[in-house]
Amino acid sequence: MALPKSITIHEVGPREGIQIEKNPIPTAEKIRFIDMLSQCHFHEIECVSFVSPKWVPSMADAEEVVAGITRVPGTRYTSIYLNAQGMNRAIATRKLDVEGSLSVTASETFSKKNTNRTIEETLVETQKRVDAMKEAGVRPSEVSVMAAFGCNYEGDIPPEKVVGLVARLMAMASENGCDIEMIQLADTMGWANPLAIRRMVGMMQDRWPGTRINLHLHDTRGLGLANAFAAMEMGVDDFDSAVAGLGGCPYAGFKDAPGNITTEDLVHLCSEIGVETGVDLERLLDCAREAENIFGRKLPGKVMHGGHLESYRRKARAAQTA
Amino acid sequence: MALPKSITIHEVGPREGIQIEKNPIPTAEKIRFIDMLSQCHFHEIECVSFVSPKWVPSMADAEEVVAGITRVPGTRYTSIYLNAQGMNRAIATRKLDVEGSLSVTASETFSKKNTNRTIEETLVETQKRVDAMKEAGVRPSEVSVMAAFGCNYEGDIPPEKVVGLVARLMAMASENGCDIEMIQLADTMGWANPLAIRRMVGMMQDRWPGTRINLHLHDTRGLGLANAFAAMEMGVDDFDSAVAGLGGCPYAGFKDAPGNITTEDLVHLCSEIGVETGVDLERLLDCAREAENIFGRKLPGKVMHGGHLESYRRKARAAQTA
Repeated sequence: MALPKSITIHEVGPREGIQIEKNPIPTAEKIRFIDMLSQCHFHEIECVSFVSPKWVPSMADAEEVVAGITRVPGTRYTSIYLNAQGMNRAIATRKLDVEGSLSVTASETFSKKNTNRTIEETLVETQKRVDAMKEAGVRPSEVSVMAAFGCNYEGDIPPEKVVGLVARLMAMASENGCDIEMIQLADTMGWANPLAIRRMVGMMQDRWPGTRINLHLHDTRGLGLANAFAAMEMGVDDFDSAVAGLGGCPYAGFKDAPGNITTEDLVHLCSEIGVETGVDLERLLDCAREAENIFGRKLPGKVMHGGHLESYRRKARAAQTA
Repeated sequence: MALPKSITIHEVGPREGIQIEKNPIPTAEKIRFIDMLSQCHFHEIECVSFVSPKWVPSMADAEEVVAGITRVPGTRYTSIYLNAQGMNRAIATRKLDVEGSLSVTASETFSKKNTNRTIEETLVETQKRVDAMKEAGVRPSEVSVMAAFGCNYEGDIPPEKVVGLVARLMAMASENGCDIEMIQLADTMGWANPLAIRRMVGMMQDRWPGTRINLHLHDTRGLGLANAFAAMEMGVDDFDSAVAGLGGCPYAGFKDAPGNITTEDLVHLCSEIGVETGVDLERLLDCAREAENIFGRKLPGKVMHGGHLESYRRKARAAQTA
């Protein structure tokens, strides 16, 4: 299949990057960082998560962060929540785009470790969340499967199992009158490879030909961009990623394991292969370098250290005409 | 095209990693590191470069390093040299596999900056090197083009130009009675992307269908493994890479730009997609982690931080049977 003409990128760095951060980031810095990202023309910026400050202290100031940012037209500002309480906190900000997702984890072991619920219990809980969404007027438009390619505790996940879980979530959505536009597959622990991507995406497209696919890829083993490229060649045009490669993998066996694929590296790849993203790469690279200041360490993004090819092309052209 | 059944990996970390290193590495540590790599069953380990200690002080002890290492059967131990003097130093060790390569840089500007010679002057010099090789009984079996995909000073390199340069080197080899087995294409400054790889490799295969292709890829902009995968699907089965992602790019605009593709991440990719490398990944991961001790900083390899999938699979199986 040919590459898509354009893709949509969901910037998840502020949420996924700060959530895992051990060192506290001042609220004003979080706001400044999101405001910088707002200059890059993203389709969406995932800003905060509304979860218990007991479990995620770095998100205790979620409401203050949202109150402080300046929304820019054309960008959606979203959040993560795990239950009705979190959703109601997001709605109460009156400033976020509150979206509904029906989600489940494909690994029984990871589901229990991460949320203390089996997959079946999660599905029961998901119905309760759908009820709460309907009551709050939030429209669920996405189904999502985490650990869709493999799990550090359970090993490989058979794609047939993922198709079965998507089918159950689709049926639940249908029973509740929800119109699902997107299937999200999250490679939460970085198990995918280009062949696995093609197999899984192909199965989803065969079964649900009219539904878009979003990939939430992690670069835990260095295959993030190879996987994204393989997916684009299958027609996938919707990706999550994090500026500077923020984030990480709390389930990996080693400290400092890489996290999400790096937004500016994905944008750079797209620019090189003729796929539009709408994202301003120069400004995004400024954000990535600023992230190293804010987070106080070298971050895994490559283009911010290796340099943007278009900037070298410009200099080369200038040298030729000089 | 189908993936190759197996690929050959040339480990260049000791040479390319140490060459760029600012902090001196003790000779004994270099020897210990190469001896550790010798336990991984590589086809080749590129150990040192024989260049002027005035330009590359970290290679001043090249002879001592070679004298200290223990050769393991099945692995070739090679070096880099730029002229007859360097070649004769390599031969004088009586311990290295001395190979001949006819090489040129595809960028006029980079050629002048890097070696103070134009491309045409380099081709004249190459003939002198071939004469020296013949005199010394060294068989040139490879032609090599550096900066084959693009150059930080000159921008994109048209693939037709690279084909033209390979043709000239092939003609020179033929005139000198050399049998060329391999065309090496080096993405010295990390300009390639998967589409460019397919185009360039396809052109080489069309023109020289019987000649193997080696890719020397750099991960400067995060596309190294995506490029390697694209090349493997074109049938390329010969790659250079560096353990732990050692190396760097002295020509990049920013310090700490990533260097060569990471050997263990390439081996891991191959293991996941069913391509044999013959390399012992567990031992290689030990080498990569030891490299962080020897070099005294976090290195860019991903699998050494994210964890080997096979090790998680083993643990998962053990948990299931427990």
